[in-house]
Amino acid sequence: MSVHSGEINIQTNGEVDIIDITSDVQAEINSSKIQKGIVCVFVPGSTGTITTIEYEPGLMKDLPRALDKLVPKGISYDHHETWHDDNGHSHVRASLMGPSATFPIKNGKVIHGTWQQIVFVEFDTSPRDRRIIVQIVGE
Amino acid sequence: MSVHSGEINIQTNGEVDIIDITSDVQAEINSSKIQKGIVCVFVPGSTGTITTIEYEPGLMKDLPRALDKLVPKGISYDHHETWHDDNGHSHVRASLMGPSATFPIKNGKVIHGTWQQIVFVEFDTSPRDRRIIVQIVGE
Amino acid sequence: MSVHSGEINIQTNGEVDIIDITSDVQAEINSSKIQKGIVCVFVPGSTGTITTIEYEPGLMKDLPRALDKLVPKGISYDHHETWHDDNGHSHVRASLMGPSATFPIKNGKVIHGTWQQIVFVEFDTSPRDRRIIVQIVGE
Repeated sequence: MSVHSGEINIQTNGEVDIIDITSDVQAEINSSKIQKGIVCVFVPGSTGTITTIEYEPGLMKDLPRALDKLVPKGISYDHHETWHDDNGHSHVRASLMGPSATFPIKNGKVIHGTWQQIVFVEFDTSPRDRRIIVQIVGE
Repeated sequence: MSVHSGEINIQTNGEVDIIDITSDVQAEINSSKIQKGIVCVFVPGSTGTITTIEYEPGLMKDLPRALDKLVPKGISYDHHETWHDDNGHSHVRASLMGPSATFPIKNGKVIHGTWQQIVFVEFDTSPRDRRIIVQIVGE
Repeated sequence: MSVHSGEINIQTNGEVDIIDITSDVQAEINSSKIQKGIVCVFVPGSTGTITTIEYEPGLMKDLPRALDKLVPKGISYDHHETWHDDNGHSHVRASLMGPSATFPIKNGKVIHGTWQQIVFVEFDTSPRDRRIIVQIVGE
């Protein structure tokens, strides 16, 4: 049993950018040589999330549209009073969806469906450099 | 320390079917002989989720009703244009709730509250055969 | 490789109390002497969640306000018929957000952003004593 810690570095286009990181997660598993275990994919920062989605153009519009309805931009947030900031909705969305997702590894491969990709979702209002942690435990 | 990988195979009745898999997860832990560790319960596929709920008849209606309001069926989704499909809302719900949940194992038992069960939630519009991965790391 | 299991015991003020448990999670990692691995933070019970947030006063109002809009208190829930209870909305919120969050550990520290704290969110209507499980796997 061992632990491998890797990083994925990406640039985002601000809200709501959805970036497929499946092959980056797999590349870290390849480096680790771990065949069987679990991988925790985590974003440090409070305005993004890790989840899965079928990575096709329609859903790239549908998920942001749903989020705009659920947690709207442009309404009043107390967060804006604290920092004279504009991203209260980004923080609320990130807290609702959580900072990480965890996946099984079998035969050296991260398990996911054929039409299910691992994605980072950028909720912050401006483009950001993002560092995503890929933490692998297994044998 | 070792890794055990098991599967739960279930049939669902389409949306929004909520299936208690707590005893199936426990059965995999029993097979693994692992006494102490963590278990990642994961669904391959982009139209379902793993979460916990008090498994009683009222909430089996309340959670679907809340989801119908949050991410409605029957409105326009761009996903439908891509595939001439009808389950855009199913995908969005699954991305919001995530593909996995992770639990502690102590004394050979998965930890959960007395009125808290581990469930698979089917968001897809039609009945499905589902394979759920139960990945256990521990000693 | 080893497994360490700890507990955090807190008292909450009922809904929607948001409690910063970052230093408690770190204290359990210190006790474990584990330098590298993952930590699963889990709440037994179906009316609370673990997530991350920037712990500042504005967001302590914004997240509850968003939840009140998404899953309102004071509307009809079938759960109330089952138990003559008043916390149907608490259960639905908890199922949507999930019972756990998982984090990487590097150099003996739980990874999180500078403005990102690990929190327990109380959704139940009354003050509660809460036991949170901190399960650590690593080396």
